[in-house]
Amino acid sequence: MALFARTPEPPYYAVIFTSQRTQDADDDGYGAMANHMAALAPNMPGYLGIETARGADGFGITVSYWTSHEAIAGWKRHSEHLVAQDRGKRRWYQHYELRVAKVERAYSGPAGR
Amino acid sequence: MALFARTPEPPYYAVIFTSQRTQDADDDGYGAMANHMAALAPNMPGYLGIETARGADGFGITVSYWTSHEAIAGWKRHSEHLVAQDRGKRRWYQHYELRVAKVERAYSGPAGR
Repeated sequence: MALFARTPEPPYYAVIFTSQRTQDADDDGYGAMANHMAALAPNMPGYLGIETARGADGFGITVSYWTSHEAIAGWKRHSEHLVAQDRGKRRWYQHYELRVAKVERAYSGPAGR
Repeated sequence: MALFARTPEPPYYAVIFTSQRTQDADDDGYGAMANHMAALAPNMPGYLGIETARGADGFGITVSYWTSHEAIAGWKRHSEHLVAQDRGKRRWYQHYELRVAKVERAYSGPAGR
């Protein structure tokens, strides 16, 4: 189940990023950059995991998990991530919402699988 | 932007539900139930909104937003939602992770759009 993040027992932090992509983002370097960011993030201090899904309508949700606010701030300031953020704002995202949340409880299922 | 939840200023709560659907869930009543739940939830006390995305690989993320732990507990106990949860565990989900988190900060972008 590589798509699921193997997070520890709470508490830890989640960055919930919901976005509507532009129609031509895929032809405009989005995929390569997304893959590059997904490869970089696990090297950051305090990284716990990431989960992402995007439908055919271009609406997507990515949730990344971190040990602390400091870890989130460190990733936000990473030089290559800053480039990606800028390109996202200018070219790839029609709209996005970013929420930082403290995970208090967590469950897995279905039981026995 | 109907796909985005119009949440108030934090703090509020997020239920992050990530799931891998079974291959035949769509032929097994999943879509109708998902639509029914999406129609019911907004009538619950403390409901703030919902965002959902699922890729062609069957991996999906649904985040629902609530005013309080009590509101989340009320929705969890709703009779028709209990039926949906049971069917999901038995038939529709290979695996899922459910996390309850307190949203502390939120941003929208890109600026000006």
